[in-house]
Amino acid sequence: MKSNQFAVIGLGRFGSSLARELIRLGHEVLGVDRSEQVADEMSAFLTHTVIADTTDEEALRSIGIRNVDCAVVAIGNDIQASILTSILLKELEVRKVVAKALSGLHGKVLQKIGVDRVIFPERDMGVRVANQLVSPNLLDYIELSKNYTIAELSATRKLACRSLKELDTRARFGCSIVAINKKNDQVVIAPAAEDLVEEGDVMVVIGTNEQIDNFESSVNA
Amino acid sequence: MKSNQFAVIGLGRFGSSLARELIRLGHEVLGVDRSEQVADEMSAFLTHTVIADTTDEEALRSIGIRNVDCAVVAIGNDIQASILTSILLKELEVRKVVAKALSGLHGKVLQKIGVDRVIFPERDMGVRVANQLVSPNLLDYIELSKNYTIAELSATRKLACRSLKELDTRARFGCSIVAINKKNDQVVIAPAAEDLVEEGDVMVVIGTNEQIDNFESSVNA
Amino acid sequence: MKSNQFAVIGLGRFGSSLARELIRLGHEVLGVDRSEQVADEMSAFLTHTVIADTTDEEALRSIGIRNVDCAVVAIGNDIQASILTSILLKELEVRKVVAKALSGLHGKVLQKIGVDRVIFPERDMGVRVANQLVSPNLLDYIELSKNYTIAELSATRKLACRSLKELDTRARFGCSIVAINKKNDQVVIAPAAEDLVEEGDVMVVIGTNEQIDNFESSVNA
Amino acid sequence: MKSNQFAVIGLGRFGSSLARELIRLGHEVLGVDRSEQVADEMSAFLTHTVIADTTDEEALRSIGIRNVDCAVVAIGNDIQASILTSILLKELEVRKVVAKALSGLHGKVLQKIGVDRVIFPERDMGVRVANQLVSPNLLDYIELSKNYTIAELSATRKLACRSLKELDTRARFGCSIVAINKKNDQVVIAPAAEDLVEEGDVMVVIGTNEQIDNFESSVNA
Amino acid sequence: MKSNQFAVIGLGRFGSSLARELIRLGHEVLGVDRSEQVADEMSAFLTHTVIADTTDEEALRSIGIRNVDCAVVAIGNDIQASILTSILLKELEVRKVVAKALSGLHGKVLQKIGVDRVIFPERDMGVRVANQLVSPNLLDYIELSKNYTIAELSATRKLACRSLKELDTRARFGCSIVAINKKNDQVVIAPAAEDLVEEGDVMVVIGTNEQIDNFESSVNA
Amino acid sequence: MKSNQFAVIGLGRFGSSLARELIRLGHEVLGVDRSEQVADEMSAFLTHTVIADTTDEEALRSIGIRNVDCAVVAIGNDIQASILTSILLKELEVRKVVAKALSGLHGKVLQKIGVDRVIFPERDMGVRVANQLVSPNLLDYIELSKNYTIAELSATRKLACRSLKELDTRARFGCSIVAINKKNDQVVIAPAAEDLVEEGDVMVVIGTNEQIDNFESSVNA
Amino acid sequence: MKSNQFAVIGLGRFGSSLARELIRLGHEVLGVDRSEQVADEMSAFLTHTVIADTTDEEALRSIGIRNVDCAVVAIGNDIQASILTSILLKELEVRKVVAKALSGLHGKVLQKIGVDRVIFPERDMGVRVANQLVSPNLLDYIELSKNYTIAELSATRKLACRSLKELDTRARFGCSIVAINKKNDQVVIAPAAEDLVEEGDVMVVIGTNEQIDNFESSVNA
Amino acid sequence: MKSNQFAVIGLGRFGSSLARELIRLGHEVLGVDRSEQVADEMSAFLTHTVIADTTDEEALRSIGIRNVDCAVVAIGNDIQASILTSILLKELEVRKVVAKALSGLHGKVLQKIGVDRVIFPERDMGVRVANQLVSPNLLDYIELSKNYTIAELSATRKLACRSLKELDTRARFGCSIVAINKKNDQVVIAPAAEDLVEEGDVMVVIGTNEQIDNFESSVNA
Repeated sequence: MKSNQFAVIGLGRFGSSLARELIRLGHEVLGVDRSEQVADEMSAFLTHTVIADTTDEEALRSIGIRNVDCAVVAIGNDIQASILTSILLKELEVRKVVAKALSGLHGKVLQKIGVDRVIFPERDMGVRVANQLVSPNLLDYIELSKNYTIAELSATRKLACRSLKELDTRARFGCSIVAINKKNDQVVIAPAAEDLVEEGDVMVVIGTNEQIDNFESSVNA
Repeated sequence: MKSNQFAVIGLGRFGSSLARELIRLGHEVLGVDRSEQVADEMSAFLTHTVIADTTDEEALRSIGIRNVDCAVVAIGNDIQASILTSILLKELEVRKVVAKALSGLHGKVLQKIGVDRVIFPERDMGVRVANQLVSPNLLDYIELSKNYTIAELSATRKLACRSLKELDTRARFGCSIVAINKKNDQVVIAPAAEDLVEEGDVMVVIGTNEQIDNFESSVNA
Repeated sequence: MKSNQFAVIGLGRFGSSLARELIRLGHEVLGVDRSEQVADEMSAFLTHTVIADTTDEEALRSIGIRNVDCAVVAIGNDIQASILTSILLKELEVRKVVAKALSGLHGKVLQKIGVDRVIFPERDMGVRVANQLVSPNLLDYIELSKNYTIAELSATRKLACRSLKELDTRARFGCSIVAINKKNDQVVIAPAAEDLVEEGDVMVVIGTNEQIDNFESSVNA
Repeated sequence: MKSNQFAVIGLGRFGSSLARELIRLGHEVLGVDRSEQVADEMSAFLTHTVIADTTDEEALRSIGIRNVDCAVVAIGNDIQASILTSILLKELEVRKVVAKALSGLHGKVLQKIGVDRVIFPERDMGVRVANQLVSPNLLDYIELSKNYTIAELSATRKLACRSLKELDTRARFGCSIVAINKKNDQVVIAPAAEDLVEEGDVMVVIGTNEQIDNFESSVNA
Repeated sequence: MKSNQFAVIGLGRFGSSLARELIRLGHEVLGVDRSEQVADEMSAFLTHTVIADTTDEEALRSIGIRNVDCAVVAIGNDIQASILTSILLKELEVRKVVAKALSGLHGKVLQKIGVDRVIFPERDMGVRVANQLVSPNLLDYIELSKNYTIAELSATRKLACRSLKELDTRARFGCSIVAINKKNDQVVIAPAAEDLVEEGDVMVVIGTNEQIDNFESSVNA
Repeated sequence: MKSNQFAVIGLGRFGSSLARELIRLGHEVLGVDRSEQVADEMSAFLTHTVIADTTDEEALRSIGIRNVDCAVVAIGNDIQASILTSILLKELEVRKVVAKALSGLHGKVLQKIGVDRVIFPERDMGVRVANQLVSPNLLDYIELSKNYTIAELSATRKLACRSLKELDTRARFGCSIVAINKKNDQVVIAPAAEDLVEEGDVMVVIGTNEQIDNFESSVNA
Repeated sequence: MKSNQFAVIGLGRFGSSLARELIRLGHEVLGVDRSEQVADEMSAFLTHTVIADTTDEEALRSIGIRNVDCAVVAIGNDIQASILTSILLKELEVRKVVAKALSGLHGKVLQKIGVDRVIFPERDMGVRVANQLVSPNLLDYIELSKNYTIAELSATRKLACRSLKELDTRARFGCSIVAINKKNDQVVIAPAAEDLVEEGDVMVVIGTNEQIDNFESSVNA
Repeated sequence: MKSNQFAVIGLGRFGSSLARELIRLGHEVLGVDRSEQVADEMSAFLTHTVIADTTDEEALRSIGIRNVDCAVVAIGNDIQASILTSILLKELEVRKVVAKALSGLHGKVLQKIGVDRVIFPERDMGVRVANQLVSPNLLDYIELSKNYTIAELSATRKLACRSLKELDTRARFGCSIVAINKKNDQVVIAPAAEDLVEEGDVMVVIGTNEQIDNFESSVNA
C-alpha cells in the first residue's frame, strides 16, 4: 500500500481520532486547528501540526495544503468555517476534499460547492448504535444493500454446542452462517455442517434484515 | 421482535439520529433535552419528548425514567451533566444505562459509576472513516477479532468479468469471498467457483487485515 | 409595468432601503427578519412582514416563499445564515434568488450553490463614492464598458455661459455632451452647438475615462 | 489630475473598498482602523495603514491627520465613535470631512457638527439595487433630476437588428437613445437614424422615468 | 414662582437627585429611563415616570416630551444615547434642552447640535471638593469672577470672641466679612464692627482668591 | 499655604477632575487606578500615577499610601472596592480618609468603618443643578443654614440702571445685596445706596430662601 | 428549649445546610435568596422561603425581617451584598445579626458596622479537616484553650483489649481518657481503671495538644 | 509525629485554609491551582505552589503528584474538574485521595470512582454553626454517637461560684462535667465535687443531646 499525505482540518474528537487512525495505517497526516491548545496536544501523534485559520486563503497556502493527496474538513461546530474552508480547498485544487456535514442542509451546500465526499459521522453512528442496542447479540453489521445485511451475532447459551446442521438457519430463517469466530480467536470461514457453535462464539450471518432479525430473536431466551 | 422502551437523553446530532433509528426499528422512544427548542424539533419524530434537566433527581423521576428498558445518555458537551445523569439513572435502578463518553477519562468515570455500556461514537467513527479513506474500494468493514476482518469491497474494472476461480483469492491472498452483491441488488451467498465478478459488484471478503489489504491494493490499477 | 412579488430577507440598512424602494416602485414586498424588533419597525412600510429563521425549511415554506417572483437574501453579517437560506430558496425552487455577498469567498459559495445573482453592495458603493470624492464636479456616473463612461458633471463658474461650440469638448477632450440638465429642471437632450452651459447646470458627458477625467480637471480653477 | 491625500477611517467592507479604489485612481490613502487584524490585512494595499482609536485627539494628531486633503469616516457600526471622530477632525481643521451615516438621526448629528458631506451607502445601494431588480434590462442608471433619468438598457432579441429609425423611441416613448455600446466594446455616441441595435448591445437612453419605464417594458416579450 | 414641567431623562445618581430636588422645589417632573427597575424605584417620588428608549423618535413623542418646559438629558454612560436623544429633543422643538456631558469632546458635540446648556457635574464637583479639601475651614464657595470669590468659612478657636474690629480683615487681608451665621442659626447680615465672631460661627467672606486664602490660612493654628 | 500630599484613588470623571484641581491649587497628588489606560492618560497631569488594586493591602503599602496627608477614595461604580479600600486605608492609619458614596447605604457603611468624611458628589450636584434650572437668574448659591442662603443672581433688563435705593430689596423682599460684580469684572463689596445695578451685573444677595425666591421671581418679566 | 425565629439570607451550600439544621433542631427558619430557583428548591424544607434582594431596604422590611430573633447573612460570593445587607439589618434593629466573612478584610468591615458575630466557615473547616487528615485516628476535636484540647480518637488494633490501667495514659503521655464510646453505642463516662478499650471503640481524651499528639502517634503501628 | 507530604488541589477559601493549617502542623504541602493569581498569592505560605490544570494527566504527572502521601481535591465550584482530577489521582495510584463534594450526588460519584474519603465542608459547617446559634452558651461540641455528645459550655452568672456538688448535674440532668477550663487557662480534668464553677469558666460536659440541652437551657436566666 502506498503511503499518502492527508490533511485533517479540525482536530476535535472525530478529527483527532481520524488523524491518529490514518497515522496507525501508515500514512502522513498534517493536522490543522485554529486552537493552539488543541494543536499542541495532537502534535505528539501526527506528522505535522499547525495552527491556522483555514478560512484565510493565504494561511491555507502557506501550510502547503496544495501538496496533500486528500484534505478532510472535520471542523466541529462552525458551519461557516466548514463551507469557506471547503471552497478554498477546491479553489486551490486540492486533489480530494472530504468534508463532515453537521446537517442535511450543510451537506447539500458542501456537495454544491464540489466537495468530493460528504460524511455525516454523528448521524451514521447514531444509526449504528441504535441497531446494536435493539439486538443484544448483534455486535456489528454492514448493510450490503437495501435488503441484505451481514451481521456479527454472539452465540448465546441457547445455541450451546449445536452443529450448523442442527441450527439449519438456511431452512428455518433463510440466512446463512458464512464464518464462525471461535472463542480462541480462530476464524472458521465457510464452516461445514458438522462444525459446532459454542456459547461465546461469534457467528457471521448473511441474509435479509428480516431473516437476521428473526434468527437473532430466536437466539434470546 | 419485542418492542422496547428507550429513553434518549440529549438530542444533538448523535442522539437525535439514534432516537430516530430506534423509532424506525419499531421501538418506543422518550426523547429528553434541556433545550426547549431542541425538544420541540424532535417531538414530531419520537413517541414522547420532554424538556428536563436530568441532573435533577426529581425531574428524572417525574418523567417516568424508571419504566424504560434502556436509557442512553447522549449528552453532547457537558461532561458534568453526563456523569451526574448517569449516576442518577443507576441510583434509580434503570434496567440498562448506556452513556456516550467524550474522552478516555470521561469513559473511565462512567465505567466506575456502573454504566452498563460506554460508547465513543466520534472516536469510533474517526477510525471507521480513516479506513475507508485509505482504501478507496473499501465500502465498510467489521473487525471480527484482533486479526480477522470482514470487508465489503467494490469490484473495479480490473476485475471485470473474472470468475472466482480465476481470481483465486484464497491461494493468492489468503482471504475468501463469502458473498457477492450483484449490481441488480441480488446477493449471491457462498458463491461457486464459476460465479463471475463484474465491475460495480460488491464482494464480501473474510480474512486477516493484511490479506484483505493486499487484495484491496491489487484491485487498484 | 407588471407588479411583482418580492421577498427581502434581512431588513438591515441595505435590506430595508431595498424593500422600501421596491414598494415605492409599485411592487409587493414580503419582509423577513429574525428579529422581532426589526420586523415590527418595518411592518408599517411593507406589504407583509414576518419574523422567521430562514435557515429552517419549515419556517420558509410556511411564509409562502415559493410564491414570490424574486427573493433577495440581504442578511447583514451572518455568512452561514446567508448561505443556508440561499440554498433552501434554491431547493424550494424560488423563481429568482439574489444574494448579497460579504466577501469574495462568500460570493463564490453563493454562485456555486446556484444563486441567480450575487451582489456586493458595500464594495460597489465604496468604488462609487471613491470616484465621486476624487472628482468634485462628478455627481454620478455609469461605466458603459471597460473604457467608456457616462458622467454627470456640474458646471462650475469657469464654464459660465459658454456655448457648446465654445467649449468644443469633442475636439479638445474627445468626449461629447449628450444632455444638459438646466437649473430650472429642464433637460436639453442632444443639445445644439449654440446651447449655453450656465453655472449650476449639470452636463451629461460620454467618453473614455481619461477624456472625462481631463475635461473634469479643466473645469476646476 | 492632481494626486490627493486621503485618510479612510474604518476599514470594513465599505471603507476598504473605498480606500482601494482611491489607490486605483492614483491617490494616496492612509488607512486607519481600531483593529490590528483589519489594519494588517489592508496594509498591503494602501499607502500607509495605522492602528488607532480615532476618538482620542492625541492619537489622531500623531498619525498626521491634519495633513490629509480629505478624511472619510467610514466607521461601521459604532455611532458614538463616528460622531466623536468627526468632531475631532473638524476641531483639527482637516480640510474636508466626509462621514458615513448609519441612520437618518446619525446623519443629522453629523451635519450639525459641520461634516462637509454625509453619505448613506447602504441606503443608496438599496435604492439602486431595487431599481435594477424590477427592470431586468436596466443595467445601471443616473437620476438627472426628479423626473429625468439616464438609463443603460440591454437590447433584447425583440429589438434584434432594428435601426434607430425603426425603433423611433422619440415618437413612441418620448425618450432618446444618446449612445449605443456595441458588443465589440465600441461606443457609438449620438448614433444616426440608420444605426442598428443588435441583440446584446447596450443602449444609453435619456428621458423621464415613465418614458424609460415604458420603453423598457416594451422591450420584454 | 410659577410651577414648571421638567423631563429628566436618565435617572442615575445625578438624574434622580436632580429630579427629586425639582419636585421638592415645587415643580412637576416626568422621569424617563430605559430600565424598568430604575423607573419603578423612582415612580414613588416623581409626578410621572415612564420607561422609554429616548433615541427612538416615536417613543419620545408618545410620552409627550413636546409639552415640557425643559428636558434634562442626564444619561449616565452612553454617549451615543445622550447625543441622539439630545438631537431628537431639538428636532421636536422642546423649549429648553439641558444635557450632561461626560467629556470635553462630548460637550462640544452637544453644543454643536444646539443643546441650550451643557453641564459637567462630575468635573465641577471634582473642582468644588478639591477646594474644600485643601482649606479645612472652607465650607462652600462661589466664584464671582476670575478673581473674586465668596467663601463660607467656619470660625476656629483661634478667632474665639474677637470683634470684627479686632479681626480687621479688610486691613490685614483685604477681604470683607459680609455676614455671620451664628451658632443659633441667626444670620447677621452686614455685621457691625462691634459684632463678635465666636468659635463655631460661620463667616461669609468676599475677596480675591488670594485674600481669602491668606485669611483662611491665618485662622488655622 | 502649605503644600500637602494627596492620594486620589479612582481616576474617573470625578476623581480626575478632583486630582487636577488639587494640582492647580499647588498640592502634590498621587493618582491611583486599577486600569492601565486610565492611569496612563492621567500621568501627564499628576505628580505620580500608579496602577494598583487598592483592595490588596500589599499593593497599597508598596505605593507608599501611608505617607499622604489625605487619601480620597473616588472609586466610580464598585461599592465593594470602595469599602475594602477605605477600611484598608484606616487600618494603615492614613491621616485623613475621604470617600465618595454611591448611595445612602454605601455612605452609612463608610461612616461606620471610620471614614473621616463621606461625600455624595452626584447627589449634591443634582441638587445644585436643580436649583439653577428653576431660577433662570440664579447663577450659583450657598446654603448658609436651613433657612438662609447666599445667592448669585444676574441682573435682567428689568432692573436696568436702578440704584440699590430704588430697588430697596431689604424693605420689599427682606434680603440684602452685599456685593455687586460689575460687568467689567470689578466687584463692589458692601455697595452704597446710590450704587447702580446695570443689566448684566451679578448681585450677591443674602436672605431666607423665600425672600431670595421672591426677589428672583420679581426680576423676571 | 424555646423555639426561635431565624432568617437565613443566602441559601447556598453553607446557608442551606445551616437552615435545615436549625429546622431539625426545632426552630422556625425564613429562608431568603435572590435566586428564584434556589428559593424554590429550599421551600420544601423551611418554614417560609422568599425571593428578595436584601440590599433593598424596602424588600427587607416587607419580608418581616424585623421580627426574627436572629438573622444569618450567609451570602456566598458577593461581598458587597453581604456588607449592605448586614448594615441594613443593623439599621432595622434586628436583634442579632450573624454574618459569614469571605476574607479577613471582609470580616473587619462586618465587625466595624456592628455585626454581632462574624464567622469564617470555610477557613474554620479547612483547619478542622487539616487536623483530621494528619492524625488518622483523630475523629474530631475541640480546642479548649490555646494549649488544651479534647480529642475523639478511635482505638486501633494495637490497643486491643487493654485496660485503662495498662494504657496508663496519664503517666505515659500526660493526657486523660474521660469517656469511652463502646462499639455498641454505649458511652462509659469517667471510666474506671479496669475498663477495657477494644478495637473500634472511640476514646475521649483531654490533654495538651502535644500530649494528645504523642498518644495518637503511639497508637499507630 | 512523622512529617507527611500533602498536595492540596484548589486553593480557594477552604483549600488555602486547609493547606496553611497543614503547614502549621509541620507537614509539607504542594499547592496546586489553575489560576496564576491564586497560586502566586499562596506561594509565600506553602512548600511549593504550581499552576496546573489537574484534569490533564500529563500536567498531574509532571508536578510529581505520585510522590505525595495524600492529595486533597479542594476544587471550589467545578464538579467536572473535581471528578476528573479525582479519577486521575486514583489512576496514578496516589496513596490517599480526599475530595470535597459540593452536593450529595457529587459525593456519590466521588465514592464510586474510589476516592478514599469524601468531605462536605460547607454542609458540615452549616450544621455546626446552627448548633452554636441555638445554644448561646455552647461554644463547640463533638457528636460521640447518635445520642451522646461532648459539649463545651460557658458558665453564666447564674452558676457563679457553685461547686460541682451543688450543681449535681449527674442527678439533675443526667450529664457529667468531665473537665473545667478555668479563666486563667488552667484545665481541671476530672474535677472533684468541691471544685467550683465560676462565671466565665468553660465546662466540658458529656451526656445525651437531650441532657445537655436541658442543662444548657437551665443555665440561661
